[in-house]
Amino acid sequence: MSEYTQIHLSARPEAGEVPGPRLFEVRKQTIPAILDGQILIKQTHMSLDPAMLGWMSADTESYIPPVELGDVMRASGLGEVVESRHPDFAVGERVNGLLGWTEYAVSDGQNLNKLPPDLDAEAALAVFALPGMTATQGLLNVGKPKAGETLVVSGAAGSVGSIVGQLGKAEGLRVIGVVGSDEKARWIVDELGFDGAINYKTDNIPARLVELTPDRIDVYFENTGGPIQHHVMERMNAHGRIVVCGLIADYTSEEPSPGPSWLQVIKKRLTIQGFTMPDHWHEIPALQAQLTPYVMQGKIKYRTHIIEGLENAMDALALLFNGGNKGKLIVKL
Amino acid sequence: MSEYTQIHLSARPEAGEVPGPRLFEVRKQTIPAILDGQILIKQTHMSLDPAMLGWMSADTESYIPPVELGDVMRASGLGEVVESRHPDFAVGERVNGLLGWTEYAVSDGQNLNKLPPDLDAEAALAVFALPGMTATQGLLNVGKPKAGETLVVSGAAGSVGSIVGQLGKAEGLRVIGVVGSDEKARWIVDELGFDGAINYKTDNIPARLVELTPDRIDVYFENTGGPIQHHVMERMNAHGRIVVCGLIADYTSEEPSPGPSWLQVIKKRLTIQGFTMPDHWHEIPALQAQLTPYVMQGKIKYRTHIIEGLENAMDALALLFNGGNKGKLIVKL
Repeated sequence: MSEYTQIHLSARPEAGEVPGPRLFEVRKQTIPAILDGQILIKQTHMSLDPAMLGWMSADTESYIPPVELGDVMRASGLGEVVESRHPDFAVGERVNGLLGWTEYAVSDGQNLNKLPPDLDAEAALAVFALPGMTATQGLLNVGKPKAGETLVVSGAAGSVGSIVGQLGKAEGLRVIGVVGSDEKARWIVDELGFDGAINYKTDNIPARLVELTPDRIDVYFENTGGPIQHHVMERMNAHGRIVVCGLIADYTSEEPSPGPSWLQVIKKRLTIQGFTMPDHWHEIPALQAQLTPYVMQGKIKYRTHIIEGLENAMDALALLFNGGNKGKLIVKL
Repeated sequence: MSEYTQIHLSARPEAGEVPGPRLFEVRKQTIPAILDGQILIKQTHMSLDPAMLGWMSADTESYIPPVELGDVMRASGLGEVVESRHPDFAVGERVNGLLGWTEYAVSDGQNLNKLPPDLDAEAALAVFALPGMTATQGLLNVGKPKAGETLVVSGAAGSVGSIVGQLGKAEGLRVIGVVGSDEKARWIVDELGFDGAINYKTDNIPARLVELTPDRIDVYFENTGGPIQHHVMERMNAHGRIVVCGLIADYTSEEPSPGPSWLQVIKKRLTIQGFTMPDHWHEIPALQAQLTPYVMQGKIKYRTHIIEGLENAMDALALLFNGGNKGKLIVKL
């Protein structure tokens, strides 16, 4: 038990490259002795998120510094304190933070959250970590939905989109989700209570939008990029809001595709607003408080897609960019 | 004096058509007797504005109903009360409102503003009417500029853009204007005090942007459409604001050109917001009050491009779409 596995970033993705094992190096490490004020965490669950592609790229303009080549790859994860020389952390407590792609992590306790003992580990990563915080900030605080309005969300079966849609329903909106398979379409309508689903791979998107949004669209939550934004723009209502949260389709394309003309932005007096969570780290407790009542009322369902073993994370990452994951992608260590 | 000229809309512009005499019909009318509660106005100055193209098109999605075929063409103008059977208006008073393309207009006084006796007629239309209100609402209330930031404005020698830039300077920003001729570039820098100008027809836009915005761009005021928005987007700072006010280049193109990719909207957490003045008619007095101190301090200069005679308005309209006007386009009747 004195050896453990860590995965380091060893190369940067080319433009258009779907990230995979080529970019990583697996290293065996020896568990270090901890110092005063430190704790040793054994990670049990690690989150895989689309933002990782940005962290791996040497884009100096990005909103968070990239991972340096040779460093442990960044990830949000959840683990158990197995040794402690820190007064605030006891052995056996569970913590959540940016633990990285590693089986063990040493920490001074900064930027770690303690988990309530009765919170399920998968719920912690699927709802109360990045996906739920992103959905809450983006829909409720940026999109400012009002009961009776119509919300369209792309990537609707994804970890963020599925929560966005359920928050929209809880707030009294008509909610239409855009997904990439009939199975996902059935899940968001039958299990999550969306009012309708569009399969962007097989449906006629503009025709289905007309059919499913009789009162047109007030809020569009953009998770994917691709052609949907162009069709949605034509169907927005006056004073509509477009929340730009993710553009997965563009992250792995060599040339980002052009956006819609701004003509509708004037005609409809639209607001298009981008946001990223690092601007809101300090608001995480407030966002968790904002989300909790919906969870307590049973209004937020989720599903997880579990990968077993840290080394399989390298292959699993691609699922986020080819739509292959079904639910929040979590690596169980 | 019992006959006067009126110009009616007789046809709608085709996609991509620059509006001209083909679309209008000149009619001679007889001055009617006014009824109790009415006034007769002799129009002295009529404003020509880019928004007219939208008013002439049968676009049911637009923010203001189109002019019906056969109706008097819509315009904002300024005139003198020459007859009155209305208690609130005296003969000799000057009024401003949507008088239309006509030498005389009968009104019940609704939606008319009275002009202070010492306000110059050209200043009234060039500053205190649509251009100044649009600049004030768009830059100060939508763009929310802060001293020390950098503002880029397109159509910078136009009636709105020239006021936007001067308001920016008055607020302590670095201001760069994009124009279509060297004469306009000299005017905005030498006369209006802009910090720099880019001639989009002859300059290398991205290279000049880098040179003129060493601290990058915080606010972009979009008046024209065209390729500038793509270059500006690449150079925005985090949390930048893009105010979409006009897209003249797209109004007369058959197919609106695509906008920039939304990748920068996320990376930089930008806000892109469209606005139109009909949403703010009720705030006109507040906007005039907001603008007045800048005018009183001599910080807002303007120039007018005067057309003589109502019938010449039909040809003059094209100047707004080919960049031929130098200053606020006003028809003197």
